[in-house]
Amino acid sequence: MTSEKIVTACLVIIGNEILSGRTQDANLAYIAKGLNEIGVRLREVRVIPDIAETIIATVNEVRATFDYVFTTGGIGPTHDDITSECIARAFSVRWLLSEEARRRLAAGYASPADLNAARLRMAHIPEGATLIDNPVSRAPGFQIGNVFVMAGVPRVMQAMFDGVKHRLTGGAPVLSRTVTSGLPEGVLAEGLGRLQARYPDFDVGSYPYYRRGGFGTSLVVRGTDAARLDAAVAELFALVTALGGEPYEGEPPA
Amino acid sequence: MTSEKIVTACLVIIGNEILSGRTQDANLAYIAKGLNEIGVRLREVRVIPDIAETIIATVNEVRATFDYVFTTGGIGPTHDDITSECIARAFSVRWLLSEEARRRLAAGYASPADLNAARLRMAHIPEGATLIDNPVSRAPGFQIGNVFVMAGVPRVMQAMFDGVKHRLTGGAPVLSRTVTSGLPEGVLAEGLGRLQARYPDFDVGSYPYYRRGGFGTSLVVRGTDAARLDAAVAELFALVTALGGEPYEGEPPA
Repeated sequence: MTSEKIVTACLVIIGNEILSGRTQDANLAYIAKGLNEIGVRLREVRVIPDIAETIIATVNEVRATFDYVFTTGGIGPTHDDITSECIARAFSVRWLLSEEARRRLAAGYASPADLNAARLRMAHIPEGATLIDNPVSRAPGFQIGNVFVMAGVPRVMQAMFDGVKHRLTGGAPVLSRTVTSGLPEGVLAEGLGRLQARYPDFDVGSYPYYRRGGFGTSLVVRGTDAARLDAAVAELFALVTALGGEPYEGEPPA
Repeated sequence: MTSEKIVTACLVIIGNEILSGRTQDANLAYIAKGLNEIGVRLREVRVIPDIAETIIATVNEVRATFDYVFTTGGIGPTHDDITSECIARAFSVRWLLSEEARRRLAAGYASPADLNAARLRMAHIPEGATLIDNPVSRAPGFQIGNVFVMAGVPRVMQAMFDGVKHRLTGGAPVLSRTVTSGLPEGVLAEGLGRLQARYPDFDVGSYPYYRRGGFGTSLVVRGTDAARLDAAVAELFALVTALGGEPYEGEPPA
């Protein structure tokens, strides 16, 4: 059994458009999977509105609790884009024009006049922050302390996240294997609980599915030790077979 | 301008499968839209793992802060389904077999022996809770105080939520209108900020889009006063037109 420090992360999704149901979040799963690869565990996600006091209090709470914090949303040019200023207030530092950020923004406009006051706000970052590249639409994100501030638009967020992943110190990658069968959860539950008890360092999950083609359960084991993961998967196959099911590796057909 | 108490809600999504990126949440947007209809504002969402202390602490924090709390996930028969017991602990009440829940579960099995110990856990609820019907797969959710505990499987969650919506006391429905144009956010920002200042009771949002067919910005106004909403939409049309854009009502073409 491996023994290692677990590196944790929290994602803060900032935006009324998610809370109103207008926009379906697409950033959580992308970040979660990317963090798995570098051995960082996403332990909590908060979706909060564009309200300064809420942003400041939330960021200050979670940056003290988790190793890394990622935020998405609220770094554009409009009145509801207040994330950047709020991060400065959360860290009790000034919110200043970054000449480098201004240069990057200016390079994208046909005329200097296009870099108006609203857009120039996107070139302001908390004092002491370092820029996060935006190869899609130029306006950068930034990192300050253990907090990474990124755009909300998925295409931009993904480019930013891929660019900063190498800055993070994780543990062993989190591996995941899935065993599916047509057995209901209630039949599998007892044996699955015993299996979880034998693999306390693993995360053993059970997810029922209901499809037009039938129903059943996917069993997922997650952990960092590949050899033990093989053993757990073999036990899952044996469990399902002993209960009269026909196990196969992977997710159920769509 | 209408003046009314704002009724708030928090959604707690419980499940490692969301945090690992395995499962894309589909419940947030459904609940958000349903709450809009009955004039309840979804003000925060938390996604947390299947860890008892986290569930208990989170539920106790948010039920004291928001008018309504909804939880999804963790009420099945397996070892990682601990939501129900945790809610009992959060409320400091006993976790007891509900004869009515047991009757409902038993009715779905061919043989009494099928209602094994694991499945019987799904018939336990916190003392004083009332059942939430599950017309899809029988195992009920429950309400205790201002907390509504529902399944995580979207089809089941939706049926449960639709069944309890009538129990909630909201305000005026939250109405939403969208005006889209090909103008970039940075051009709209200044005028939009002034418009927000004139409609402090409204939520004015700005959402850029990037599609194969082009880019632009959707402007969204949300509020309860239909007449003032008409006026705000007219102002948005005028703003976009004055800036050289061609506004239309609705979201951009997919």
